[in-house]
Amino acid sequence: MSESPNFDRVALIGIGLIGSSIARGVRKMGLAKEIVCSARTADTRRVALELGVVDKAFEHSEDAVKDADLVIFCTPVGTYVKIAEEIAPHLMKGAIVSDVGSVKQTAIDQIEPFMPEGVSFVAAHPVAGTEKSGPAAGFAELFYKRWCIITPSKTSSEAATARLSAFWTALGSDVEVMEARHHDLVLAITSHVPHLIAYNIVGTADDLEEVTQSEVIKFSAGGFRDFTRIAASDPTMWRDIFLTNKDAVLEMLGRFTEDLAALQRAIRWDDGDALFQMFSRTRAIRRQIIDAGQETGEPDFGRAVKPGSDT
Amino acid sequence: MSESPNFDRVALIGIGLIGSSIARGVRKMGLAKEIVCSARTADTRRVALELGVVDKAFEHSEDAVKDADLVIFCTPVGTYVKIAEEIAPHLMKGAIVSDVGSVKQTAIDQIEPFMPEGVSFVAAHPVAGTEKSGPAAGFAELFYKRWCIITPSKTSSEAATARLSAFWTALGSDVEVMEARHHDLVLAITSHVPHLIAYNIVGTADDLEEVTQSEVIKFSAGGFRDFTRIAASDPTMWRDIFLTNKDAVLEMLGRFTEDLAALQRAIRWDDGDALFQMFSRTRAIRRQIIDAGQETGEPDFGRAVKPGSDT
Repeated sequence: MSESPNFDRVALIGIGLIGSSIARGVRKMGLAKEIVCSARTADTRRVALELGVVDKAFEHSEDAVKDADLVIFCTPVGTYVKIAEEIAPHLMKGAIVSDVGSVKQTAIDQIEPFMPEGVSFVAAHPVAGTEKSGPAAGFAELFYKRWCIITPSKTSSEAATARLSAFWTALGSDVEVMEARHHDLVLAITSHVPHLIAYNIVGTADDLEEVTQSEVIKFSAGGFRDFTRIAASDPTMWRDIFLTNKDAVLEMLGRFTEDLAALQRAIRWDDGDALFQMFSRTRAIRRQIIDAGQETGEPDFGRAVKPGSDT
Repeated sequence: MSESPNFDRVALIGIGLIGSSIARGVRKMGLAKEIVCSARTADTRRVALELGVVDKAFEHSEDAVKDADLVIFCTPVGTYVKIAEEIAPHLMKGAIVSDVGSVKQTAIDQIEPFMPEGVSFVAAHPVAGTEKSGPAAGFAELFYKRWCIITPSKTSSEAATARLSAFWTALGSDVEVMEARHHDLVLAITSHVPHLIAYNIVGTADDLEEVTQSEVIKFSAGGFRDFTRIAASDPTMWRDIFLTNKDAVLEMLGRFTEDLAALQRAIRWDDGDALFQMFSRTRAIRRQIIDAGQETGEPDFGRAVKPGSDT
């Protein structure tokens, strides 16, 4: 099936990093006649209009969704119920409603029950982002060669799923369709637990008495620096992710701490062989991620200087 | 005091990422009349000579150190005792011996007792690196604007400490002098524990049955990717670091797991306020690291594409 990725009016609820990146991509690829958004704060609406990423910016989401044939929730998962309730009476018959949240079963449970007859809800998750927030942080290429996971549910018609797939493909993504619960498990280990750990180590370092904060900052190039990047991500969004993907996160976290206890024991008992074995096998995974195009093979040392230009 | 950073013959024991980066820096800045190295494997010696980063490459370290007025250990900490014993009878009177290891009290304990009368041992740690290994991975700018921590001990004469500081300054580093035990504590939290955690999460992900390895790789852009970079670091080097900085690592790891247990509890009991508070305060630290020049503020999304070039 070759469904069209084009829409008349795309309405983005929220215009932060992801919302504004979608808006830019839609504009760049000519996927909509009109792009509108809603945002609660006047300043955000002003910035979005000034940047020219949307044609209109509304305070209330119900105004944005009018006449929209594609509506995308680009707000933290914790806002879904309230917004779904607000927009439901104003949705156009035949509209597709989607989201970009990092937890999919909750998105379905919270949005789908409010959808009126004739509206298809199709949950989606573009696995892309940076540690920046806000409408100015977005860019059209954010989704390019990144995976977008679509998790259809009860009200997702086949045609709507196909159109949303075509839409994300047009934005440059590779699309994968998956069951929502499985998505939540995969993301718990590839995204949610890594973020929790990064937040945690940065917090631990901040609390030390023997080592000053200025020392932590000065000598961060030894590895710590990379964790702070992740730990700079939007706090509201991540709070909601942990609260809504609780079971999968706790399950994966349990495994992580078990494994960490084993490593800790190997250190305590001078088991160099166990450490070496563990450290060797993780190298192979890195190689595969680079081969899969999800990362460059360039060494990263915290600044943009071309290495290797000398003898 | 303004000691000269220049030497007649710099001997590098080991010519991997760090050794070959020093060699390139010394060459570029004209800090030595002759640069030699030793490396056990013929292939490494061949590559180092072919790259032109050293003038001579020896199989045995005792041959490299002859007539050298600066000798630097650039091998994993686990090799220090054997090499110190081997080179001791061949060291020139007045020579400065140093190292680049990530654990400083052990470096002092293992190398200093072998140093003959008239030789100054001055331990040092350039806090810089990439996840790559081997002589071809090095580059002269690796140490530029990175900290080099010098931890003088019993046999470090003031003049030797000042000359080594001048040497690292000439390579582009900012030098900080610190007590060895304090260095080991600072690095435990800014480098060693972050590496252990990265190795661990990559291992945990690799062991899952519910999530396939190909899924972990595909969807790694959600955060996991950044950990695999760190977990691709040299296994031998890192085994030795954990075995030789055991006490500080176990202490910091204990605090980390305690803090993680608190976050886990907040998730289990839906304590969104505690999560939000924790996630907010870690953002500030990131800002300070960027301000301190230890990282660029550019968003990292795993590939070299200029964001923001469109509307």
